[in-house]
Amino acid sequence: MTDATRANPVSPKPGSQSALRKLNEQRVVDTLGAHGTLTQAELARVTGLSTATISNIVKSLAAEKRVETTSVTSSGRRALGVSLLDVADVAAGIDFGRSHVRVVLANPGFRLIDESSEPLPIGHRVEDSIAIAARMLTEACRRTGTDQHRLLGAGIGVPGPIDHRTTMVINGAILPEWVGIDISAQLHSALGVPVIIDNDSNLGALAQITWGEHQTCTNLCFLKIGSGIGSGLILNGSLYYGHLGITGEIGHSTIFDQGLICRCGNRGCLETVASTAIMTEMLSHAEGKPVSVEDIIERALAGDWATLRIIDDAGVAVGHALANVANMINPEAMVIGGPLAPLGELLLEPIRRGLNRHAIPAVGEGTSLHMSMLGDRAEALGAVALVLRQDGANHRQPQRKTTS
Amino acid sequence: MTDATRANPVSPKPGSQSALRKLNEQRVVDTLGAHGTLTQAELARVTGLSTATISNIVKSLAAEKRVETTSVTSSGRRALGVSLLDVADVAAGIDFGRSHVRVVLANPGFRLIDESSEPLPIGHRVEDSIAIAARMLTEACRRTGTDQHRLLGAGIGVPGPIDHRTTMVINGAILPEWVGIDISAQLHSALGVPVIIDNDSNLGALAQITWGEHQTCTNLCFLKIGSGIGSGLILNGSLYYGHLGITGEIGHSTIFDQGLICRCGNRGCLETVASTAIMTEMLSHAEGKPVSVEDIIERALAGDWATLRIIDDAGVAVGHALANVANMINPEAMVIGGPLAPLGELLLEPIRRGLNRHAIPAVGEGTSLHMSMLGDRAEALGAVALVLRQDGANHRQPQRKTTS
Repeated sequence: MTDATRANPVSPKPGSQSALRKLNEQRVVDTLGAHGTLTQAELARVTGLSTATISNIVKSLAAEKRVETTSVTSSGRRALGVSLLDVADVAAGIDFGRSHVRVVLANPGFRLIDESSEPLPIGHRVEDSIAIAARMLTEACRRTGTDQHRLLGAGIGVPGPIDHRTTMVINGAILPEWVGIDISAQLHSALGVPVIIDNDSNLGALAQITWGEHQTCTNLCFLKIGSGIGSGLILNGSLYYGHLGITGEIGHSTIFDQGLICRCGNRGCLETVASTAIMTEMLSHAEGKPVSVEDIIERALAGDWATLRIIDDAGVAVGHALANVANMINPEAMVIGGPLAPLGELLLEPIRRGLNRHAIPAVGEGTSLHMSMLGDRAEALGAVALVLRQDGANHRQPQRKTTS
Repeated sequence: MTDATRANPVSPKPGSQSALRKLNEQRVVDTLGAHGTLTQAELARVTGLSTATISNIVKSLAAEKRVETTSVTSSGRRALGVSLLDVADVAAGIDFGRSHVRVVLANPGFRLIDESSEPLPIGHRVEDSIAIAARMLTEACRRTGTDQHRLLGAGIGVPGPIDHRTTMVINGAILPEWVGIDISAQLHSALGVPVIIDNDSNLGALAQITWGEHQTCTNLCFLKIGSGIGSGLILNGSLYYGHLGITGEIGHSTIFDQGLICRCGNRGCLETVASTAIMTEMLSHAEGKPVSVEDIIERALAGDWATLRIIDDAGVAVGHALANVANMINPEAMVIGGPLAPLGELLLEPIRRGLNRHAIPAVGEGTSLHMSMLGDRAEALGAVALVLRQDGANHRQPQRKTTS
């Protein structure tokens, strides 16, 4: 489960070898459930499967932490006793932001059972952030009485595009410290649970259709406006990953041909016009002292003209870029997230204006535009949803008895 | 099969009522195959199904033209004799262009067995074009010895976006004559076969992964540059239709904020910069006499500077718009089709330059860019592929015997 591409697993075909294997596995699990601890020889006798098959199945169930094996004595000889382990019905979601880490736990009913967040120093080392997340996860498990080693898994959000060929964050991420590091391996070893890594905007999108107000939506674009600007796409009901996993890079649509140079190497990208980084920079420059994102929100709500103008310009530019996307993928809804969400209609109105100005009429009218109600929790909520949805598709369904 | 949204039908769940119905239907078909013509009473006796069930199944098979019913005399009484009809293993594809109609026939092995094309007068009436297509289809069936009424179906390409709520071409189509007409119904009645309507660029995209050089490609964008500019998306291996079916409208991405007014009501759209309509218009204006698309190709290949400059400017603009798309959906390949395809590298090189200039590096490098090798046949080939692929999913699989 360390591969983020496995979002759409398919059930094995009836009659295929993998279907047969699943049925045999289920027979072993059912038998252990009915009899308690059995040796492998006893399992073979009761199930009618060969000892080789039993041995393979036990090995694979043990690797998945669904059974444990112990040395026992049977008819005076040493043998391997096999017993069922209860998998904790809890999944974790961890979101690494530029300046925070958030950890949530939820059960397969998509009920949140724990949530915590801690600040991270700007420019933090990856190892330090991972250590903080690991401690927070352990504490969350302790608080909820969850056995950490039996978690269904941990979904991990990182603010950068992930190349599916290497499962590493590629250059151009908001967190340069994370580029080129095998985060999956480091996290798996630090947390002691299976991990799935994904881009923060993808997880934001998944959160909208899982925990947000768009649960019936099958085509949705989630746009996160922060220090960078990224988006996640739900297409035909699933997260869309494209050819290499590098999708939703709307922050690098060219808005002004002769605009500012962007960190991606291009110029005039949406990020150079509408990110919180450029907004705070422009206001700080005008005032001769640092202005924060919180200041922007506070001043805009108080009606400060310069701040409102900057928000308006940014909003129209975002709407322009969203219109190009809507013209192509014709989503049902577009949802705006990130730290500016508290601006509400002050930001949404110019975005809507830009969208309607640049989209073809049928698409502009057919696309609903909203602020995310999930705030800065969207990414962590999406991360835990990634595990719960994957688990639902991967593990639960094949274990159901087939009815024919 | 008149609904273009049915591109991804799902098989009925095992054990469900529709699965049971399919099994019963198959039993009737198998019995007729083994016994030849039977009365409904005989069918009920042999299959063990109730007469009511038999009557329903025969009615539905007759509507699908899979059986025919005749009056027979059985034990001195009049009864309904039921016999199997062979469905012709042939599908049709019909492409309505601005100035032509093309008809192809192919079998389920995706082998073309007939192909023809006729010019249409500019501004033709829809009824006339449909009558021409109907005559061409009848001739094609006669040439190949195909019973037209037993065709698997006809895929129809029209050059305009189709709103899935109404299955009608929406405003903004290249062929204003087609807007708001219930083409499905008219074509179904004129051709006498089930029809599936789709947008020409969608069909161009489908043709690339079916008949073109991108058969292994699961994420592809096909761009058609003609009097208008449209695109079709293959995402996760299937044609993508979005919320309302209005996708791929890349011709209306804003390229120049203060550019020309576009037929969509916006300004500076890609179409106002890079369509064949604007290219011929600009050259005609410069020369004081009409210049055609054929002239553009001829002059560009002969090295005419003004023509090359117009192609270069158009290509870079197309590349710019494609870069925004690639940044979002990260396709494996982008394929350019339409009447300018004979320009080859003369058009492809500036498009590639625009793409690499505006895409983020990992996406620009990861996207292969090609001219379509299918020429002006792409849409008709895609249209017949639509039927063959749908038929494969809809009709063939459920008729297979289930093995469990």
